[in-house]
Amino acid sequence: MVPREKLVADMEKMFGQGKVLKSELERYTYTYDSSFASQSNEYYPDVVVCLNSTAEVSQLMKYAWENEVPVTPRGAGSGQTGGSVAINGGIVLDLSGWKDIVEVDDANMQVVVRPGIIHAELNQELAKYGLFFPPDPGSSVFCTIGGMVSNNASGLRAVKYGATFQYVLGLEVVLPNGEIIRTGGLKSKALKSVSGLDLTRLYCGSEGTLGVITEIRLKLLPKPQSRGIMLALFEKLEDSALTVLDVFKAGIIPSGIEILDDGGIRCANMFKPDLNIPEVEAAIFFEINGTKPAVEEEGRQVLAIAQKRAKSVEWATDAERMAKLWQGRAVIGAASARLVPGKTRIFAGEDVCFPISRVPEALRRIKELSKQFNIPVVIYGHIGDGNMHTAPIMDPLIEDEVERTHKLAEAIHNLALELNGSTTGEHGVGFARAPYMEAEHGKALDVMWAIKKAIDPKGIMNPGKIWALGRE
Amino acid sequence: MVPREKLVADMEKMFGQGKVLKSELERYTYTYDSSFASQSNEYYPDVVVCLNSTAEVSQLMKYAWENEVPVTPRGAGSGQTGGSVAINGGIVLDLSGWKDIVEVDDANMQVVVRPGIIHAELNQELAKYGLFFPPDPGSSVFCTIGGMVSNNASGLRAVKYGATFQYVLGLEVVLPNGEIIRTGGLKSKALKSVSGLDLTRLYCGSEGTLGVITEIRLKLLPKPQSRGIMLALFEKLEDSALTVLDVFKAGIIPSGIEILDDGGIRCANMFKPDLNIPEVEAAIFFEINGTKPAVEEEGRQVLAIAQKRAKSVEWATDAERMAKLWQGRAVIGAASARLVPGKTRIFAGEDVCFPISRVPEALRRIKELSKQFNIPVVIYGHIGDGNMHTAPIMDPLIEDEVERTHKLAEAIHNLALELNGSTTGEHGVGFARAPYMEAEHGKALDVMWAIKKAIDPKGIMNPGKIWALGRE
Repeated sequence: MVPREKLVADMEKMFGQGKVLKSELERYTYTYDSSFASQSNEYYPDVVVCLNSTAEVSQLMKYAWENEVPVTPRGAGSGQTGGSVAINGGIVLDLSGWKDIVEVDDANMQVVVRPGIIHAELNQELAKYGLFFPPDPGSSVFCTIGGMVSNNASGLRAVKYGATFQYVLGLEVVLPNGEIIRTGGLKSKALKSVSGLDLTRLYCGSEGTLGVITEIRLKLLPKPQSRGIMLALFEKLEDSALTVLDVFKAGIIPSGIEILDDGGIRCANMFKPDLNIPEVEAAIFFEINGTKPAVEEEGRQVLAIAQKRAKSVEWATDAERMAKLWQGRAVIGAASARLVPGKTRIFAGEDVCFPISRVPEALRRIKELSKQFNIPVVIYGHIGDGNMHTAPIMDPLIEDEVERTHKLAEAIHNLALELNGSTTGEHGVGFARAPYMEAEHGKALDVMWAIKKAIDPKGIMNPGKIWALGRE
Repeated sequence: MVPREKLVADMEKMFGQGKVLKSELERYTYTYDSSFASQSNEYYPDVVVCLNSTAEVSQLMKYAWENEVPVTPRGAGSGQTGGSVAINGGIVLDLSGWKDIVEVDDANMQVVVRPGIIHAELNQELAKYGLFFPPDPGSSVFCTIGGMVSNNASGLRAVKYGATFQYVLGLEVVLPNGEIIRTGGLKSKALKSVSGLDLTRLYCGSEGTLGVITEIRLKLLPKPQSRGIMLALFEKLEDSALTVLDVFKAGIIPSGIEILDDGGIRCANMFKPDLNIPEVEAAIFFEINGTKPAVEEEGRQVLAIAQKRAKSVEWATDAERMAKLWQGRAVIGAASARLVPGKTRIFAGEDVCFPISRVPEALRRIKELSKQFNIPVVIYGHIGDGNMHTAPIMDPLIEDEVERTHKLAEAIHNLALELNGSTTGEHGVGFARAPYMEAEHGKALDVMWAIKKAIDPKGIMNPGKIWALGRE
């Protein structure tokens, strides 16, 4: 390993002082992302380098390869599993300033971007063409597309539109040794290809462990003509999940199906008192989109289905009312941090995914765990695909609460595995979930590792993520 | 390499005579698939073994691993690139008899199947639950789900529903050394997971080069309530492509958009004379599905868009008329074989994919190539995603025609690369497209190969596919 002072000097020589951050304070801001795991440690990178060209990234990787220096690529740092934190030191490669839209190809419904562009900014630009990139993470206004691809992010509309991997047509990748490849075809703009092993999809969700993604070609969809929002309230959790299944069985796929539990409802009411949602066990938001008559018809059908079990149902197609209802869902991430005075919401065990049929059981069990460890948990999220957000509310300055929160998160992860789910539906593994990988995947983890070693034999790409440090 | 007689004896000893095919005639039927490339060679396997349990497949692979015997997995043999043909001898592992539906999990909208089940039979069973597996290949009535996963197949409804990879949630795979892994989580039934490298997607389209797929967990969708079919006729090819783009721009995504060129129209009229479609340059079929009012509204809008450029447009929601119109598209595969008396249709250069905006140019150029090499070509296929089928009509007994057909296929592949397309949109690489991989992928092909070597270091899994024989 190159000594820190030499590493910094080499970086400044290669890229200029303006692109290199070296002071303790500057480096401190790179010691964490949004995960609780990173915030309760201080993993300093030796140096941070901010680049915005493929040639520079290639030069950086050649240096890192020759000198066996770890490199951790980073976008907005909004990840919730420590994925962009350099837990083994070395270089953090900050790509958040590399925000170009290289090409909007309207006629072929695709766009080429650099990794640092923000999700909301991209969709704002695409709206001019009547197009959109469908995955819709809660972090839309600050997360980068590079981060979304690296984590295979999804969010609020995955129930209809799926996750990021379905929209990535090709990538430019700088390999650990500095070589540059293009996945999905050197010059391809095809919307479909089965030519060779699917490297594009392999890099989706690889969390920076196989190289640096420097350009992304995305498939887009035309913007739907119309939408409607329904809010259905249920006295019993189980009834909310059964209603979701009934909607699917009717042949209807809403563009979003989101749940708030009683804690979530309290959060919504706190930030949006006008909504004044009764504190039942579950509120479900359905979003439906399509042509206007399609939205009306599906709204009518979903209303009839929901009314069978719901305490009350509201259906809105008026823009103002829709915005207000949807805000009730949108504010939860922020509001949960304020639910209990003096405490905050942290991200740990926060995006487990269950088979839909087991969601009610899962939610009951999580509430029991919350009581058992005496840590309040707000539950909300994407019930349409079983991907639930469980938000522990705690005081990170009280050591005992920290310990109980870690135990709670561990129990929630194990519950996901017990109930035939996954420890992570959309946030990724990072280092926070690495301990669960063996239990979740068994021998398949060895195959993943064999691929890692084949592409990154020196182990310099984002070490300690997906697989814990020290694996050989 | 084990001598053939010993190999046969070992297989019979391990699995019983009933599961082993050894005569020349039996082995002959495994020397080809639907590709012209395989039909103009005779690649005999040393032995064919028909298995239907994971334990047996594991036992077979352990033997093959120890003795370094090539193994080529095979489903229905309906592939069009020679993917299931043992071009380097060894064992063909016939999985077409392993057809179990292990579990229909209605509530979680998923199904677990063994690789040999036929696509149409699976969807017939799923219809009882109001569910379906959306990818819809033209070979539905005979292709296997194992083959679809191995080739990442798509077909007529990819424009709305995407390719097979979007629906595969997990796989059981026997590795080259006989070990058994599960991708997507050991016990998972989650609809979404970003836990670790995405092995599930890596195996989709890997064409049997990384192991043997022995079980498949698929995500399903609820069956749409209603559908409608539109047939629009265009005097000019260009107008048909522009109409497709206009439909997308209106925010409408039909469930299928299929094109027939003038040769395709002649085929349709020959097999379905009642249709009597005028011989214009292009006929486009739009299929629209959803709730009844949604179908009516989208049909109304697509009709208005198509009428701007079409010579004539017909919109049908009557079941009988829809069936008749759709048959016009469905018969092309078979009818093209009979278009010119004494000649047949062969599969070579048959599934190139272009960016949609370049489809008109591509079709003109293919017609020119057809003239240049004096081989008639019928063009049809999935214009909604740019994936065109180009069917050469020729006499395989005339040597000179064979040679010109090979040159035509080569020119069509190269055209796809020139026009920013892919050499294969849905049929795969097999050995027929291996020669184009370097040009299509450049250095990315080395990364694919590194993965291959990491998982199959002895190179026993389906050698000569994706990468030509002899690569080290």
